[in-house]
Amino acid sequence: MLSSSLINEIQKILGKENVFTTLEERLCYGYDSTPEAFLPDLVIRPTCTEQIQKILKLANLHLFPVIPRGAGTGLSGGSLPVKGGVILDLNRMDRILEIDEENLVATVEPGVITAHLQEEVEKRGLFYPPDPASLKTSTIGGNVAECAGGPRAFKYGVTRDYVLGLEIVTPKGEILQTGGKTVKSVTGYDLTRLYTGSEGTLGIITKIILRLIPKPEAKKTMMIVYERLDDAAKTVTLIIKQGIIPVTLELMDDITMRCVENYLQLGLPLDAEAVLIIEVDGPIDLVEKQINQVGELSRANGAREVKIAKNEKEREEIWAARRAVSAAVVQIKPTKISEDIAVPRSQIPVMVRRLKEIAFRYQLNLAIFGHAGDGNLHPNILCDKNDSEEMERVEKAIGELFQAAVELGGTLSGEHGIGTMKAPYLKLETGEVGFEVMRAIKKALDPNNILNPGKIFGSG
Amino acid sequence: MLSSSLINEIQKILGKENVFTTLEERLCYGYDSTPEAFLPDLVIRPTCTEQIQKILKLANLHLFPVIPRGAGTGLSGGSLPVKGGVILDLNRMDRILEIDEENLVATVEPGVITAHLQEEVEKRGLFYPPDPASLKTSTIGGNVAECAGGPRAFKYGVTRDYVLGLEIVTPKGEILQTGGKTVKSVTGYDLTRLYTGSEGTLGIITKIILRLIPKPEAKKTMMIVYERLDDAAKTVTLIIKQGIIPVTLELMDDITMRCVENYLQLGLPLDAEAVLIIEVDGPIDLVEKQINQVGELSRANGAREVKIAKNEKEREEIWAARRAVSAAVVQIKPTKISEDIAVPRSQIPVMVRRLKEIAFRYQLNLAIFGHAGDGNLHPNILCDKNDSEEMERVEKAIGELFQAAVELGGTLSGEHGIGTMKAPYLKLETGEVGFEVMRAIKKALDPNNILNPGKIFGSG
Repeated sequence: MLSSSLINEIQKILGKENVFTTLEERLCYGYDSTPEAFLPDLVIRPTCTEQIQKILKLANLHLFPVIPRGAGTGLSGGSLPVKGGVILDLNRMDRILEIDEENLVATVEPGVITAHLQEEVEKRGLFYPPDPASLKTSTIGGNVAECAGGPRAFKYGVTRDYVLGLEIVTPKGEILQTGGKTVKSVTGYDLTRLYTGSEGTLGIITKIILRLIPKPEAKKTMMIVYERLDDAAKTVTLIIKQGIIPVTLELMDDITMRCVENYLQLGLPLDAEAVLIIEVDGPIDLVEKQINQVGELSRANGAREVKIAKNEKEREEIWAARRAVSAAVVQIKPTKISEDIAVPRSQIPVMVRRLKEIAFRYQLNLAIFGHAGDGNLHPNILCDKNDSEEMERVEKAIGELFQAAVELGGTLSGEHGIGTMKAPYLKLETGEVGFEVMRAIKKALDPNNILNPGKIFGSG
Repeated sequence: MLSSSLINEIQKILGKENVFTTLEERLCYGYDSTPEAFLPDLVIRPTCTEQIQKILKLANLHLFPVIPRGAGTGLSGGSLPVKGGVILDLNRMDRILEIDEENLVATVEPGVITAHLQEEVEKRGLFYPPDPASLKTSTIGGNVAECAGGPRAFKYGVTRDYVLGLEIVTPKGEILQTGGKTVKSVTGYDLTRLYTGSEGTLGIITKIILRLIPKPEAKKTMMIVYERLDDAAKTVTLIIKQGIIPVTLELMDDITMRCVENYLQLGLPLDAEAVLIIEVDGPIDLVEKQINQVGELSRANGAREVKIAKNEKEREEIWAARRAVSAAVVQIKPTKISEDIAVPRSQIPVMVRRLKEIAFRYQLNLAIFGHAGDGNLHPNILCDKNDSEEMERVEKAIGELFQAAVELGGTLSGEHGIGTMKAPYLKLETGEVGFEVMRAIKKALDPNNILNPGKIFGSG
């Protein structure tokens, strides 16, 4: 708990109206998109870097935790105040400071909503590709802190690939500038990428310099239905071998399709093992050519149905199915544990089979969907967090699915981060040495463990 | 100096034939592509990770420096034994361990020559884009340690963008595995990118997992002559605004052209301010369309001459000019100080003018060429390292050119690294806070300063 004199001091820095102390207010900042929730001691809403500097100096002096928070859409517990402390809400620092059209660079504050930035740059014929599912509410700051991905990552890469530079407030309250407006920069250690994806444990990101690209001229979307998952996976490999790099290569399994169909009645097949949603973009002639090539390849490799969207309305219908997934799967059970493993692309069929076997063994409802192009699958376990017996089985199943991913040469997390949810499993992938190297970095840069304690490394 | 009992122990680990002790042998490992040279105490040539682990354990016990070395083509002094110690030559660890065509991933040892890997993957229809000028001799390990770039970086990114995972021997002799075969991975801190570009100061890279892409179907090359540099720069911006992303956008200034023409008699113009060499690649129809678009844009924006290569022979002729630059410029003076600043693309004309002004003021010969697409310029100061009066002027000019780059929002080094050459200027860009953050990481991961001491941070 924070003393009232300390709260007073914080109020002086930020103005009383930007410091929330009541239980009701604090409750509103203690959750994210995981099933967990914790109560912070205080919530603050700074508007500038200087205020954050003062707060961190205070935190380092009085040793209270500071937990940066964007929109709270995280899926690994990154913004949960697991050890109490002060929630630092960055939503009021939401200015797009510059869109430099000549150098294809945007400079933004962390609270800018991802979709808002995308709209603004697209008005200018430019493009910011990273597209986490939460993009209509999530913030760029949160995207950078978690190194968010999204369907378009297969062609365009993840958030990391667009962060050119950062302004960071260190735990001591100092200002660190990393990178800049140039794409190439090898001046000392790559701090920009170290802080990107560091989940708020090393510093508070207060400014972000992002690379933009020209907006692709056209795009074309298709849905392909497969009786057999292996044929879908084989098609994906063949598409890429032909030198075609679609923007998205989304995969939905049978259970996912049934959930969506039950929810929306779109006429999805209920007896097929897999559906791919493929989108290609680029110059219009090339897009036309490639979408037809993909169609032919699919038909030659076991596709039951190939549907190319002829217009924007048909394109919307295809994406409606994919977008409905999250809402549809929770119709089965109230709690959704959304996992985020990635495996080498060729291992997708093996991984899906192992996932289904694990779910069967623990008698759990499991919907699998994700990004087939980069092997990033989202197995969603549908359960009830109030059913403690079921949650025990969920826990065991999660342990096994992580184990399987790592055994197949994959990773615990493709795009959601470790947070609290995956902290107990971290060493599975990093080993003891990787864990110790990461912890040495944390200790070197935040010796008093002020910033977002309990994340990545767990409570250890 | 190493004691003879220590040398004995090292010989036991590696076999006597892989430990060089004579002055002649040691002299061969004390230089790189900078004008500097230092004498190591010992040179060792390990063949496997286990040997390196044993050496590092010994180094940490007896506190001698270990300096990893690839082909010695570095331009910032990264492999120079500035404090003596043991040169760890990685050239015998030169196996391509796997080219995984299904997942588009190659796993290699650090001593693999860049061009060799490129040939092998291209035989399979795949492509490894990073192309430092030294690629015919440089090693992948060195490329990763320095985060090498090259002309193709404008479209395809730098080495960092292709490193998916690493095996590293830590200063304690432990094995650290980072990343893996998946493109997406956010499991804890991004150690893969932290070690990439860390110039051998944090660990010895013993295995590298690289992302590959499908080989582009076709490419087309052109040379464009401009009376005025500003017109060349304007064209570059307009090309990108049209959504065309060429593979290369190489720029040569008037002095560079004169040097090349003097050396090779290719018929280059001697009265023009700038030449651009532009190459586009991709599907054949698109390449044809884009090269013509670039041609039209150039003519509409002050180009005096636009020459599109009609065949491979003409393409070779165009590239011959660019490739001859390094050899040509040293015809003027024996010593070439090759700098590597990068500025936001729009600042290229300003930067070139400031560079010319600095060279004029210090009465130095300066040739400027580089990668206009990403604002990465290589101002080459041509001088005589035995002329101490001239070298003093060179020193001052370098300080000013770094200052100018940073003032224009740029960086000290786009692709060569800091090494020893730029260490005195590091804080110009990182500031005190960035310097201390980097040094805290170095201290946390190599507390005894065994690995490549004197680099990045200087002797401080």
